[in-house]
Amino acid sequence: MHIDLNCDLGESFGTYTLGLDAEVIPYISSANIACGFHAGDALVMEQTVGLCAKAGVSVGAHPGYPDLQGFGRRNLAASPAEVRSYVTYQVGALAAFCKAAGTQLRHVKPHGAMYNMAGKDPLLAAAIAEAVASVDEKLILLALSGSAMIEAAKAIGLPYASEVFADRAYEEDGSLVARTKAGAMITDEALAIRRVIGMVKNGTVEAVTGKVIPLSPDSVCVHGDGPKALAFVKEIRAALTAEGIDIEPMAAA
Amino acid sequence: MHIDLNCDLGESFGTYTLGLDAEVIPYISSANIACGFHAGDALVMEQTVGLCAKAGVSVGAHPGYPDLQGFGRRNLAASPAEVRSYVTYQVGALAAFCKAAGTQLRHVKPHGAMYNMAGKDPLLAAAIAEAVASVDEKLILLALSGSAMIEAAKAIGLPYASEVFADRAYEEDGSLVARTKAGAMITDEALAIRRVIGMVKNGTVEAVTGKVIPLSPDSVCVHGDGPKALAFVKEIRAALTAEGIDIEPMAAA
Amino acid sequence: MHIDLNCDLGESFGTYTLGLDAEVIPYISSANIACGFHAGDALVMEQTVGLCAKAGVSVGAHPGYPDLQGFGRRNLAASPAEVRSYVTYQVGALAAFCKAAGTQLRHVKPHGAMYNMAGKDPLLAAAIAEAVASVDEKLILLALSGSAMIEAAKAIGLPYASEVFADRAYEEDGSLVARTKAGAMITDEALAIRRVIGMVKNGTVEAVTGKVIPLSPDSVCVHGDGPKALAFVKEIRAALTAEGIDIEPMAAA
Amino acid sequence: MHIDLNCDLGESFGTYTLGLDAEVIPYISSANIACGFHAGDALVMEQTVGLCAKAGVSVGAHPGYPDLQGFGRRNLAASPAEVRSYVTYQVGALAAFCKAAGTQLRHVKPHGAMYNMAGKDPLLAAAIAEAVASVDEKLILLALSGSAMIEAAKAIGLPYASEVFADRAYEEDGSLVARTKAGAMITDEALAIRRVIGMVKNGTVEAVTGKVIPLSPDSVCVHGDGPKALAFVKEIRAALTAEGIDIEPMAAA
Repeated sequence: MHIDLNCDLGESFGTYTLGLDAEVIPYISSANIACGFHAGDALVMEQTVGLCAKAGVSVGAHPGYPDLQGFGRRNLAASPAEVRSYVTYQVGALAAFCKAAGTQLRHVKPHGAMYNMAGKDPLLAAAIAEAVASVDEKLILLALSGSAMIEAAKAIGLPYASEVFADRAYEEDGSLVARTKAGAMITDEALAIRRVIGMVKNGTVEAVTGKVIPLSPDSVCVHGDGPKALAFVKEIRAALTAEGIDIEPMAAA
Repeated sequence: MHIDLNCDLGESFGTYTLGLDAEVIPYISSANIACGFHAGDALVMEQTVGLCAKAGVSVGAHPGYPDLQGFGRRNLAASPAEVRSYVTYQVGALAAFCKAAGTQLRHVKPHGAMYNMAGKDPLLAAAIAEAVASVDEKLILLALSGSAMIEAAKAIGLPYASEVFADRAYEEDGSLVARTKAGAMITDEALAIRRVIGMVKNGTVEAVTGKVIPLSPDSVCVHGDGPKALAFVKEIRAALTAEGIDIEPMAAA
Repeated sequence: MHIDLNCDLGESFGTYTLGLDAEVIPYISSANIACGFHAGDALVMEQTVGLCAKAGVSVGAHPGYPDLQGFGRRNLAASPAEVRSYVTYQVGALAAFCKAAGTQLRHVKPHGAMYNMAGKDPLLAAAIAEAVASVDEKLILLALSGSAMIEAAKAIGLPYASEVFADRAYEEDGSLVARTKAGAMITDEALAIRRVIGMVKNGTVEAVTGKVIPLSPDSVCVHGDGPKALAFVKEIRAALTAEGIDIEPMAAA
Repeated sequence: MHIDLNCDLGESFGTYTLGLDAEVIPYISSANIACGFHAGDALVMEQTVGLCAKAGVSVGAHPGYPDLQGFGRRNLAASPAEVRSYVTYQVGALAAFCKAAGTQLRHVKPHGAMYNMAGKDPLLAAAIAEAVASVDEKLILLALSGSAMIEAAKAIGLPYASEVFADRAYEEDGSLVARTKAGAMITDEALAIRRVIGMVKNGTVEAVTGKVIPLSPDSVCVHGDGPKALAFVKEIRAALTAEGIDIEPMAAA
């Protein structure tokens, strides 16, 4: 049994430092590296790819909207054609740093508002899947379990991997409970970890309604943006390992 | 006998249109496509690569400084490490659009202030050559004949091609006469064309001092940024063809 | 009787030229000058303010979303607090160029997606009205007739002016017919001009339903982005003048 | 007897936090607030002006080159006309936030590469002085003691203030010892403080050659970018106060 732990890295920009990249790298198996649109810059990308290559962490591109000021978290009414070109551009840029570092780009995970919007919009989702496939059809599209992006990848035969969030509650249909609703967040860390172990071992999780639903993750999203997040990564890794679950880079579903 | 005619393309940005790309493409053999730092954007890159692929024009990346406001023409004190990462990033981005369009990236020509600064600064030149080689060691570095970039390419075994300018006078050592000096520009178009033909056929040109010097271009830089420039491209192509000189994408020197 | 003709100016950026500013200036009474977020840059702002000051055209700020690539036309989920700060910043920047040119900033008209979103969203509208008042409470907020921005200005006692579009049809409630509906655009230029004359002289216009509704514009939006647009500005100015309607900078409603 | 302690503030951007602004504000008398070109954004400017206004710290604009990635520290070959427009723009933007906060903009201190380049280049210095005067002729230009900017301010009758650095050695002519030379930095903090006290009380300092030279500062530059810098600000303030020197916002020289 195995699971992937993925984390957003390379979010520093110029003189601005963000994230505990070096500290979290030993505990994760995949990195989503920012590509200069919502965070990151060319030098940061080069350095982050280098850190990952050295540590044996699998490298993915983390393309976002061109909105450094909003960290790519603000919805932007970009057309599918624009989004396709944004993803192609950013994936290509990160692939070049992988090539230069003697490693290989393995996956692509859209960031922030692009992840959220394309998770629900089939046209944006298709644009992203096409962009990824156009650069390298062996790249894995990492996206929210059950989202429109997973469907878009299936539709064109692009490898994909389903992502879950340890700290989020799920509806009966497998979608995330909206943050605006009560109970959306799992704040009890021990519970969060038990839920993830259950997903990996049994392929199920308890929905917010109490019903047990199927949910088979390929990757769990963790964070390295502060001491508390870092501590949780160590804990979840230790707990998964103790259960006999190996932490390995995602394989396509 | 053959020569390459290269032209900067894809310099539009968002709603801003620049250059007569579609009009000049039939007359050139290589395109240097802007990569989003000094000009161009992801959508423009996609479209421009598509136009070139369809027309059989050889595609090159045209990386520049991150200075859209100054069109990459203002000297910027970026370090060699920064410049290396800028070039890797931009070349990777354009290579992705080539892959998506089913064509291949063939060369890299730095733009504007980067071209000028790296033409004289061995550290910047080495950074650029390394960046290009790190993405694809078969890429041709297109740079000013006799410049530090040509030397940097030679030093690491990177393919290179020497560029000349039809409208510029040369010193005895093969360098360009500075624009601030009298006689720097060749304003007589017929003379400019005769000089290029002489370079291609005889491998020589008359320096500003009157002395005939060796100069063997692999590529001639032409422009498509206005009706006058476009007319000149048609003329020089016709004149070269009439002399039995084929217009072909550059080969490495 | 009098009316204002307002036009978006100063939309060039760096080496990119947009709009026939110098040609349209003699025919308009107010200019909305881009402030560097969606278009324009510092040098362009300085030059455009100078042109307007010389020609006696009233100067307004034209703040937009920070989206040069999308020309500020793409909806962006910026918060009211962000929008307030964006407007304050841009209005202040343009006011400085007015001061430097010995003229005075007279109005503010939000651009593109900001204009459209704030026309319907009372929170965004209030943020913009507050920002304008915080810089100079005598500034006129120029906004779509009957929009949330007009209401927001009224609510805090900020001077405002109602804008109409010669080429757009109106619903019975005075709102614009959505572009997606049939009949949204008035393509017959002579009809467009008669409608504007009717609005100014009678304070009424025929809605898309055929019903005559009240509509009292303070300003008519015209364009200078091409020869056709420029020709229309000349025509509408001539027609209004022939009717005894003077073209004068907007006064607050 | 009195002296000003000035500090660069408002250098955060979007999600990126930089500097201990709230912590250093109680110890300084003037703030140089970034204006969105090399650091800072509209929301950060609004918040920083608010903090300063509340604490009674005098507010200045800190305009820089449009180079967020390089934090405005990289020399950029912008023309005097470009620099003039950059300064006008940024000063106007910050002045608007001051107006909104019910406080007043008091000074302008160029940042980083602009400060260094204009300190030596009379044309850039004149462009900056003109820009400041064009927005408000009562603004104080804060610049390196003895620099070309001080001369430019004098030449047009613009108020100015001379800045000194506690941690830098001086040549006999009052210029800073270049960082590349031995002894350029005063690393002994106690010595640095004694030197500043001597400048304020006696109007002199010992040059790197050992000769005592005249140097009458209007303002001392301090930093709030880390715990060590913050500790030094507290120390120098305490030492100055103990010597009977009041910490007050700069007055024009």
